[in-house]
Amino acid sequence: MASKLLHRLIRDRLGDVAHLFENPSAAPPICLTKNGSPYQVEAKKGATQDSLITGIIENAFKQMDDLIEKEKASYSISGGCCALAAVHLMGKLYVANAGDSRAIIVRNNEIIPMSSEFTPETERQRLQYLGFLKPELLGNEFTHIEFPRRIQHKELGKKMLFRDHTMTGWAYKTIVEDDLKFPLIYGEGKKARVMATIGVTRGLGDHDLKVYNSNIHIKPFLSCCPEVKVYELAGHKHGPDDVLIMGTDGLWDVTTDKDVAEAVTSFLSCCDPNDPMRYTLAAQELLMRSRGVLKERGWRLPNERLGSGDDITVFVIPLAGAEMET
Amino acid sequence: MASKLLHRLIRDRLGDVAHLFENPSAAPPICLTKNGSPYQVEAKKGATQDSLITGIIENAFKQMDDLIEKEKASYSISGGCCALAAVHLMGKLYVANAGDSRAIIVRNNEIIPMSSEFTPETERQRLQYLGFLKPELLGNEFTHIEFPRRIQHKELGKKMLFRDHTMTGWAYKTIVEDDLKFPLIYGEGKKARVMATIGVTRGLGDHDLKVYNSNIHIKPFLSCCPEVKVYELAGHKHGPDDVLIMGTDGLWDVTTDKDVAEAVTSFLSCCDPNDPMRYTLAAQELLMRSRGVLKERGWRLPNERLGSGDDITVFVIPLAGAEMET
Repeated sequence: MASKLLHRLIRDRLGDVAHLFENPSAAPPICLTKNGSPYQVEAKKGATQDSLITGIIENAFKQMDDLIEKEKASYSISGGCCALAAVHLMGKLYVANAGDSRAIIVRNNEIIPMSSEFTPETERQRLQYLGFLKPELLGNEFTHIEFPRRIQHKELGKKMLFRDHTMTGWAYKTIVEDDLKFPLIYGEGKKARVMATIGVTRGLGDHDLKVYNSNIHIKPFLSCCPEVKVYELAGHKHGPDDVLIMGTDGLWDVTTDKDVAEAVTSFLSCCDPNDPMRYTLAAQELLMRSRGVLKERGWRLPNERLGSGDDITVFVIPLAGAEMET
Repeated sequence: MASKLLHRLIRDRLGDVAHLFENPSAAPPICLTKNGSPYQVEAKKGATQDSLITGIIENAFKQMDDLIEKEKASYSISGGCCALAAVHLMGKLYVANAGDSRAIIVRNNEIIPMSSEFTPETERQRLQYLGFLKPELLGNEFTHIEFPRRIQHKELGKKMLFRDHTMTGWAYKTIVEDDLKFPLIYGEGKKARVMATIGVTRGLGDHDLKVYNSNIHIKPFLSCCPEVKVYELAGHKHGPDDVLIMGTDGLWDVTTDKDVAEAVTSFLSCCDPNDPMRYTLAAQELLMRSRGVLKERGWRLPNERLGSGDDITVFVIPLAGAEMET
């Protein structure tokens, strides 16, 4: 439901400005009349078609998040999700990601990353900056300063490694009473959490999410804004095994980019090239590889490591033939 | 004076932890006792010597800015400056930049950028985010939203290109009363200004700077935090013409990286290789090239373009022989 609505929002906003794209080399006009036609001929240098499409997708995510908040009030539905979207328009692919899903293009065995993940570790400085500017959001229980581990009371006055919102390096600071609070971002890698609650820092929804057993809201720290990457379809020749792979964290947690790419390439090479189901089957293959096999000790991968216990959604989308479509 | 004090702050803080660097492969300990010796043997994975030196330099800039504020109160000295510092330590070069100065390494005719500039354009999203979170800093005269140009009253209700703090692209929004305020960031390129006042967004000092004819402070939008880049001296063989070039914006405004590199390389190749003054003379050559020649119509470059009217400070620092020093 939500994905269909996001799709419609992006499509409708693109429809509003489609008439501006009739001349692909012209910059979009600065100002439009109320009905959408150009108000003045002046164009903004630097505002290209790409930047306009990117801006529309960015705003559609925001609108979607606002709609979820409204629906929540009407229907009391809670929860949230990451969002990863791909838009194919005028010979280009726009991939928008808000969360820890991931998209890669596999072209002639080369892997091209089409998204970055947004986690407490990758977004540490943004989260800390907000906590620093608005300490009331931390509810007197958390400190925006990062320490490698929880500080013990007996360590007051000693020197501890720390990172503040302006720092990329670590330095030592003398521990004061306030540093005994729980760190806003705590844990490493997959275990890193915002206020001990959530391990992903962008997405839609979660307007009601609170720190366990408290009245502290998480939502102010979550961003619904995607990062949009652009891929020039028209600039490359694509074979039938060149694909865009989009997957949720459940896929990527247990399988690397390289393994995913190799699995898809080797699966597709064994299929009948005329089988219309081959991309769907490749996605299913990826899903099952990451889930593993149910054994006595839970879902296991061939190497006996744990299979992914998280949701897994995968798309494998062929790129061949898309170069010329609009 | 200020540069000597910054130098001392960095040196003193490095001195505090120098004993931790005796074993270069060991990670710095998480916690130190009050006298600075390791409190526990536990080490922070990810906290390397590089990140500790980076953290120390980052904090020294902050301390320096705090000191300037204190001095200002005692001696009523106003003003501010960008800061660019290079630290040579244990086979590496750490270059820290806060502002629009620039450092490049020229090695075997290749240009290696050692800094990024911090201007209203490069830092737009950070500035807008602060204006969004703390609108009181904008004094009811500015809007944190960026528009391509000042909006006229008669355009109310029309649609204008805009960018908000979460966006990298442009989109259209319907103009409302609040959008008639002056944009926080206005102008393009060299003319971009924060609240129509300052064209650089990081540096030291400027605690008293206000928007002309108002009581709106600029300092909250300026950051004193440098970006630190690391260069492995030990990993390369340097000839006598391989140099680190550090210069203020007055140099780079009128001369490109490539022109600066070529000018230095060609100047050095004409010098007596045993002349101890050759690097100083190369710096002087750069300065004079960017200043130009005084003609009837002001300082002019050979191509008749205006010479730089800004302060120009240049260092040309040889890299040869530094690989082994500590």
